[in-house]
Amino acid sequence: MPRASVREVIVESALTQFHRRGFNACSVEDITTAAGVPKGSFYNHFKSKEDLGAEVVRRYGESSSFRAPVPDSLSPLEELRARFHATRDRLVANEFRQGCLLINMGAEVADHSPVIRAEVETSLGNWSHRVADLLREAGATGELSDDLDPDLLAGFVIDAWEGAITRAKVMRSPTPLDDFFTVVFDRLLR
Amino acid sequence: MPRASVREVIVESALTQFHRRGFNACSVEDITTAAGVPKGSFYNHFKSKEDLGAEVVRRYGESSSFRAPVPDSLSPLEELRARFHATRDRLVANEFRQGCLLINMGAEVADHSPVIRAEVETSLGNWSHRVADLLREAGATGELSDDLDPDLLAGFVIDAWEGAITRAKVMRSPTPLDDFFTVVFDRLLR
Repeated sequence: MPRASVREVIVESALTQFHRRGFNACSVEDITTAAGVPKGSFYNHFKSKEDLGAEVVRRYGESSSFRAPVPDSLSPLEELRARFHATRDRLVANEFRQGCLLINMGAEVADHSPVIRAEVETSLGNWSHRVADLLREAGATGELSDDLDPDLLAGFVIDAWEGAITRAKVMRSPTPLDDFFTVVFDRLLR
Repeated sequence: MPRASVREVIVESALTQFHRRGFNACSVEDITTAAGVPKGSFYNHFKSKEDLGAEVVRRYGESSSFRAPVPDSLSPLEELRARFHATRDRLVANEFRQGCLLINMGAEVADHSPVIRAEVETSLGNWSHRVADLLREAGATGELSDDLDPDLLAGFVIDAWEGAITRAKVMRSPTPLDDFFTVVFDRLLR
């Protein structure tokens, strides 16, 4: 296997560091030290920490556990539940720490970095499209009888999930995640 | 009117700075400079920036626009809607910047400061109790027919609102807030 490029090692290190500690809590030096590369190499690959932050958000959005494989036999709403559950399992294993990098970066950095804000918006939008597609399929099969706009409903469901993840981190408890499943799957999507 | 104490001036300044810029983006010196007090005075009043952060979260939780007066004539669900709407108006006036300090601090700092985490949890809990009380009243009058646990439902509604506020900040758009009203008041609470 070829050695990972310095650029790639920096992105991976930054993803871990930003997710664990937050964007402003990490310096470029923290990231290069954790990556085991010289600090000077950073600016060969990135214009700024902000530029790296945008790349990290894009990478996180593409590698979300929401894309993990699920059995083919699931109905659209079962698939949706399974996908959220896979993320729940990851959060439980991590004792609810870190939360979702998208909402962390949105909350901390969106007002201060147009490029990071744009990447968070794109990642949330891509995720929302996947949820909306499942809601559309569920509507077509009659599994979902509510005729509310699937894109609107998908955005709401993701907002509720992001809020629940953050409250779970604050409470160090699965309760907000479990309450999300109860309200969304037993009340809202039917 | 007596002059505000130095401590009070520091708390007010920090609330503005943390909300506008984030916790880790502000130094103690940024806060004392904005407050117009000597940096050295800070440690007469606070053990640390973290100690001040916890005080700021407590203050923010107590002064929420969710407590603004509303007409007596409103039903419980109308009152709930009016209270969220008052917060929406504040966010629109602010062009969706800053978002909610509770979720900002939860997302950025909860993993790293037990005292700030505890204050965010308390403030979210107090807010949730107020929402749950209105849901209980709405259940008692028959305005809300769903018999789901009002505390569970209140927590979910707040998570959805916090997520919507953060996405509104990311999108610089009222859409997530408007979608919250549609789903919560036209679908969920009935």
